[in-house]
Amino acid sequence: MLLGKVIGNVWSTKKNEKISAIRLLLVQPLERDLRPFGNVIIAADEVGAGFGEMVIVTQGAPAMHAFCKDELTPVDAVVVGIADNIDIADESVS
Amino acid sequence: MLLGKVIGNVWSTKKNEKISAIRLLLVQPLERDLRPFGNVIIAADEVGAGFGEMVIVTQGAPAMHAFCKDELTPVDAVVVGIADNIDIADESVS
Amino acid sequence: MLLGKVIGNVWSTKKNEKISAIRLLLVQPLERDLRPFGNVIIAADEVGAGFGEMVIVTQGAPAMHAFCKDELTPVDAVVVGIADNIDIADESVS
Amino acid sequence: MLLGKVIGNVWSTKKNEKISAIRLLLVQPLERDLRPFGNVIIAADEVGAGFGEMVIVTQGAPAMHAFCKDELTPVDAVVVGIADNIDIADESVS
Amino acid sequence: MLLGKVIGNVWSTKKNEKISAIRLLLVQPLERDLRPFGNVIIAADEVGAGFGEMVIVTQGAPAMHAFCKDELTPVDAVVVGIADNIDIADESVS
Repeated sequence: MLLGKVIGNVWSTKKNEKISAIRLLLVQPLERDLRPFGNVIIAADEVGAGFGEMVIVTQGAPAMHAFCKDELTPVDAVVVGIADNIDIADESVS
Repeated sequence: MLLGKVIGNVWSTKKNEKISAIRLLLVQPLERDLRPFGNVIIAADEVGAGFGEMVIVTQGAPAMHAFCKDELTPVDAVVVGIADNIDIADESVS
Repeated sequence: MLLGKVIGNVWSTKKNEKISAIRLLLVQPLERDLRPFGNVIIAADEVGAGFGEMVIVTQGAPAMHAFCKDELTPVDAVVVGIADNIDIADESVS
Repeated sequence: MLLGKVIGNVWSTKKNEKISAIRLLLVQPLERDLRPFGNVIIAADEVGAGFGEMVIVTQGAPAMHAFCKDELTPVDAVVVGIADNIDIADESVS
Repeated sequence: MLLGKVIGNVWSTKKNEKISAIRLLLVQPLERDLRPFGNVIIAADEVGAGFGEMVIVTQGAPAMHAFCKDELTPVDAVVVGIADNIDIADESVS
């Protein structure tokens, strides 16, 4: 999974019906020192993440299994947790 | 998912029969400030996206689940929504 | 999917029996202006592509679904179409 | 799979219930000479890996199959082994 | 798939039981001119590849289908063939 920060929302009225009820977040991936790296991704929200929160994002096929539905949802990234804190060796970053 | 812009079409007469009825779009991935980044990708259209529109693209195995078919379609990228607007913190880009 | 150009073949006598009957092509990914970018990939051929042809390649798990078999084939890239032409906005490249 | 080193933990109280019982590790990918490269990833622990240990990480859809559950777990990276030693040609690095 | 060269082994005694009987190889990806590029990957061996051999590696979910088992194996890279030779246009590299 990757560590990221919620930086915004994506609004879409015309979309695939299988994702019609899903909130789409803009997530900026973070480095281990919490600096941004790489490009933003659009992730489905499954935990009620808010602006500025540090989150855990699952990508690829596993993202589809974060939902409790019989039918698979065509999303390739989903926020599966709010990261409260990360510990690196003796240092702690929160 | 990634944010992209539809910049063209790909025409193919000789193709796998499972994708014979699918419209193939050329999509340029965008950064958070909507500037292009990286290389174009070919994505199946599932929402009727047009030239110049800003779109949401699902990649990998989840792309196969955007279609309402019993048989899985061998595409690894599909446009699942038109992005009307993105909000980044206090700024809004549309 | 990615746009590529067939630049060669890969010969293998000792291989997994599930791919024993598959022709393996060397494909050079192309940019939107048809210049090469990135490294070559080995793709299974499902449409009878020849040297120098511009092709559409599906990668990852969806590649397995290009074949008409009950058993899934362990390939992660497959040529699913010959690209006759690509249109970019007002320009056409063929 | 990739070779990595466990450098920390990620703590999350608000997370998808399917991953509620999973320990999340911060893993730094390593080069063949064991120097760090690229960005850290968050991987589920399936073998009881500790700080500083060199580990083998499976990514993507296969990561879901490291668990012995009927239901698939929405993680895209999992530690599947502790690497005791790697041999490169005549040299051995441990 | 990618073209690679077997450069070593990875030894692991404490590992996920589903991969307990699998030999893990260190593979260096190669460019079209057979020069190394990118970082090494750890791949399961399914064809009996030896040190220094040029191999074909399948990555991602398709890698799980190289094995003849009912249960899916949590590996994301597997050697599916020994590459005897590659032909590039009029040139042949072996």
